[in-house]
Amino acid sequence: MLRAARRAFAFRPYAEVTLRGIAADAGVSASLIVKHFSTKERLFNTVADFGPAADQLFAAPLDALGRHMVLTMVRSRREQQGDPLLRVVFALGNDDERVLLRERFAEQITGRLTALLTGRERALRAELIVGQLLGLGATFSLHREGANARAAPERLAELYAPALQRLISD
Amino acid sequence: MLRAARRAFAFRPYAEVTLRGIAADAGVSASLIVKHFSTKERLFNTVADFGPAADQLFAAPLDALGRHMVLTMVRSRREQQGDPLLRVVFALGNDDERVLLRERFAEQITGRLTALLTGRERALRAELIVGQLLGLGATFSLHREGANARAAPERLAELYAPALQRLISD
Repeated sequence: MLRAARRAFAFRPYAEVTLRGIAADAGVSASLIVKHFSTKERLFNTVADFGPAADQLFAAPLDALGRHMVLTMVRSRREQQGDPLLRVVFALGNDDERVLLRERFAEQITGRLTALLTGRERALRAELIVGQLLGLGATFSLHREGANARAAPERLAELYAPALQRLISD
Repeated sequence: MLRAARRAFAFRPYAEVTLRGIAADAGVSASLIVKHFSTKERLFNTVADFGPAADQLFAAPLDALGRHMVLTMVRSRREQQGDPLLRVVFALGNDDERVLLRERFAEQITGRLTALLTGRERALRAELIVGQLLGLGATFSLHREGANARAAPERLAELYAPALQRLISD
C-alpha cells in the first residue's frame, strides 16, 4: 500500500490522487486503505516522511558513516527492492505537493546531515553527500542488470564510500 | 519545444503523448511542431538522444575528466537552467517507452564512458561515475536555493570532482 501511495503521490498532482486509485494499484480494497490511514492527508504525511530513512542512513559514527551509508543503500536495493530516498527525485517538478515533498526531504535528510557534520561549509557538503546518495540509488535503479548488480556490497563500498567519507570528514 | 517534449515523454506514457499537447505546453502552434519534427516518433528520438550530452561531458582527457564533468554540470544548471542527464531519472518507472529511454542512456552515456575508461571493472566504475553525475544534478535541482547555488563552480569541482576522478583513474 505504501509503495502504491508513493507512486501515486510522486507521479500525479496531489489533487488527482485518490485513496480508491491507490487501493486499486495496491490490489487491496479502498476500505482497507481508509482503515489504515483514514485520510489522504495522513497517507501523504506518511509517504513524505523521510525520518526512518535518515535514522537508518545516519546510524554510524562520522568516521565510518560513508561506508555505512553505501552498505545501507545496497541492502535497501537488494533486500527490499527499493530505495529510501529516490522518490524525492520523481518530485523534482514544480507542483505544490512536490515542493512539500522536497521541503520535507531537505529538512529531514539534508538538514539533519548538516547538523551532524563538523567543520566548514557543512550545508554545502551535506548537499553534495545527499547528491552522491541519490545518484547511487539512481544508478542502481537505472542499471538493474548492470555490473553493480553483480558486485559484492563490500566492493561497492570500497569504490564509492571514500568520496562520501571525504565530504563527511572534510 | 524540446523542453516541453522532454517533460511530456518523461511524465506520461508514450501512447498518451500528443504533438498538440506538447505544442500547448510550449506555447507554440501544433503546426510548428509538425514542421520541425514531422512525427511523434521523430520527436521522441530527438528527446531520447543523449549523444550531445555525452559529447559535452566526456570532452576532456581522462586525467582531467572529473573536474570537467563537474564544471559541465554546474554550467548546464546555471546557464541553461537544465541538466543534460536528469530526465532519465524521471524514467525509472516500468513503462515500455521509459525502458527505451533508459536503454538509450545506458548505451550512449554509461556504455560510452565504459569504453573510455582503462583498467579493471570498467563497467562497474562507469555505472558509479554516472551515479555521481546524476546525483549532482539531482541535488542541484532539489536544493535550488541551497548552499550549492551560492558556491563558486571551482569550489564545487574541488569538493566533488576527486571522487569522480578516483573512479576514472582507478
